[in-house]
Amino acid sequence: MRVARPADKAIPFDRIRAVEWENDHIKLIDQRVLPGKLEHVYVDTLGGAAEAIRLMVVRGAPAIGITAAYAVVLGARDRYRENPKNWREALKSDLDFLSAARPTAVNLRWAIERMHRLAETIDGNPVAQLLEEAQRIHSEDIAANHRIGELGAALIEPGSSVLTHCNAGALATGGYGTALGVVRAAVTSGRVFGVFANETRPWLQGSRLTAWELLQEGIPVTLTADSAAATLMRQGRIRWVIVGADRIAANGDVANKIGTYALALAARQHGVKFMVAAPISTIDLETPSGADIPIEVRAGEEVMEFAGQRTAPEGAHAWNPAFDITPAELIDAIVTENGVIEHPQARTLARLVGKKG
Amino acid sequence: MRVARPADKAIPFDRIRAVEWENDHIKLIDQRVLPGKLEHVYVDTLGGAAEAIRLMVVRGAPAIGITAAYAVVLGARDRYRENPKNWREALKSDLDFLSAARPTAVNLRWAIERMHRLAETIDGNPVAQLLEEAQRIHSEDIAANHRIGELGAALIEPGSSVLTHCNAGALATGGYGTALGVVRAAVTSGRVFGVFANETRPWLQGSRLTAWELLQEGIPVTLTADSAAATLMRQGRIRWVIVGADRIAANGDVANKIGTYALALAARQHGVKFMVAAPISTIDLETPSGADIPIEVRAGEEVMEFAGQRTAPEGAHAWNPAFDITPAELIDAIVTENGVIEHPQARTLARLVGKKG
Repeated sequence: MRVARPADKAIPFDRIRAVEWENDHIKLIDQRVLPGKLEHVYVDTLGGAAEAIRLMVVRGAPAIGITAAYAVVLGARDRYRENPKNWREALKSDLDFLSAARPTAVNLRWAIERMHRLAETIDGNPVAQLLEEAQRIHSEDIAANHRIGELGAALIEPGSSVLTHCNAGALATGGYGTALGVVRAAVTSGRVFGVFANETRPWLQGSRLTAWELLQEGIPVTLTADSAAATLMRQGRIRWVIVGADRIAANGDVANKIGTYALALAARQHGVKFMVAAPISTIDLETPSGADIPIEVRAGEEVMEFAGQRTAPEGAHAWNPAFDITPAELIDAIVTENGVIEHPQARTLARLVGKKG
Repeated sequence: MRVARPADKAIPFDRIRAVEWENDHIKLIDQRVLPGKLEHVYVDTLGGAAEAIRLMVVRGAPAIGITAAYAVVLGARDRYRENPKNWREALKSDLDFLSAARPTAVNLRWAIERMHRLAETIDGNPVAQLLEEAQRIHSEDIAANHRIGELGAALIEPGSSVLTHCNAGALATGGYGTALGVVRAAVTSGRVFGVFANETRPWLQGSRLTAWELLQEGIPVTLTADSAAATLMRQGRIRWVIVGADRIAANGDVANKIGTYALALAARQHGVKFMVAAPISTIDLETPSGADIPIEVRAGEEVMEFAGQRTAPEGAHAWNPAFDITPAELIDAIVTENGVIEHPQARTLARLVGKKG
């Protein structure tokens, strides 16, 4: 089921919701067709949600996690209808299936595990309790983003310009955004006056999503080809690179959208600071280092086609890793709702995760 | 005037000619429509050639230089027809106009100056002598590329994989190519078995042109998003980055397609060697350093549109520098037809330019 409205009608940014629960459905903004069209896709099964995650109707680690939490509600509802006695058993394989939709972002697994732990305790119809938990995950994420925005903005020297990569905004989260939450807070408080966004090939999250989000609230944004970022830095035009994360390993290595690592290398070379903004749920203490994070390699067609039109000759191949690993030593600050750590290390990260936000 | 043939019929690579002189016209492969279509544009005025250069019907520093040399023949012919006495005076402003078509590649200015020096010595109808000179510039470039290919390939350890950026192939030169000349020679001699090509945003020279050229002769090529190159290096999958150049300053700094600098930074970080392959005409001893090279900034629409389709929201802006500067200290070897210099410096470059090839 689809409902469309014109994409050129501005939405207040704090009303942008990539994921919503509405009338027993998950309502997703179809991020494949922005900024040309603002369409919603309604999903009413766990399998449909897994497919939406896989096809990137919804993307962004926290938004994927929230979608998965709601998907568990749908899965539990259907399994309970089928078999009110053994629904938990059937749900278990559904959850494995859902977990496999995308491998890199840990928030997917994190949300499913949290929902599963609760499901294990429920007798009778599980829908109401599970829905409450999914909505709690959702609202906690929004609150975390606001706190991340505040804490991250405080690190930025007044009068700075910043660069972001991919989309770690309202569209990638429950709402407000992680990296873009920081940008929003810093623009509002007058610390940031210039925002550059990498277009972010191959999926163009920067051009299509980040620029769209920022323009909804009138924040001017200058797009650049990803490969121009090093020159932007060399010209002294930005003070911070601010990105989100798909997974942060126990040692502080960060998996994020392909291209993040090259940015971090160039930033260090030019004395530009590098900030990772992400909720605590992105930190995976069970993954020792970046080398242990599974990196999704997507179809080469994403690189070789554009809007259904082939750009490379027939017979060409493409290698299309969706993420890369930025080693902890290139990161100046990790900003979470529990606080900020500079120069992340295993010890400081573990302490941050243990802390109450 | 346009003539098209199917782009999927392979052309032997040593027959690919971006620029040809044919029946008193310049015949150009229209590089804006490859690889989908192989179309030729025929140009029969100096102004038409300037427009073709500006619009990137023809691109690549050496190919632009050759096109300009032929354009001078057309300009001189027309000015001589108009006024057989004072044609040189009128031609002079035409040459300034032609020089301004694109600012960064020095080969454009170099070829125009060489043609102009000859024009100054001619009495009577200048067409035959100027055409002979333009054809000499063209054939010298092809010969230079073959020599560059040989010399560059000899630097590469057998069993290597390499990465190239943009298109420095037959399509960018008189024929055969500079960086791709090295790749061809190295594949032929069995030194290189894997070729990666950056797609090269925003114009997609890598996806559209480099992949097409290499596939014409059956060299397998793997395309990557530009921002994935650092990960390719981190995984130890390439030994050399090989690129062309639009201008080499007296101190060895290199202007080349946007993204080259980020590649050079990542290469140094990972112990990957960095080779610049270019004819001597690309070395501009009158430009002291990279900071003195004018960098063309093209329309933001190149970043925000694809094939006439808008990818960014209305209201977004883009910064679109076409080139960047790679400092000499990041370059392991500059390969020219006059020889190779490692770790370029002002002294060794000047000596190379003075040398006979």
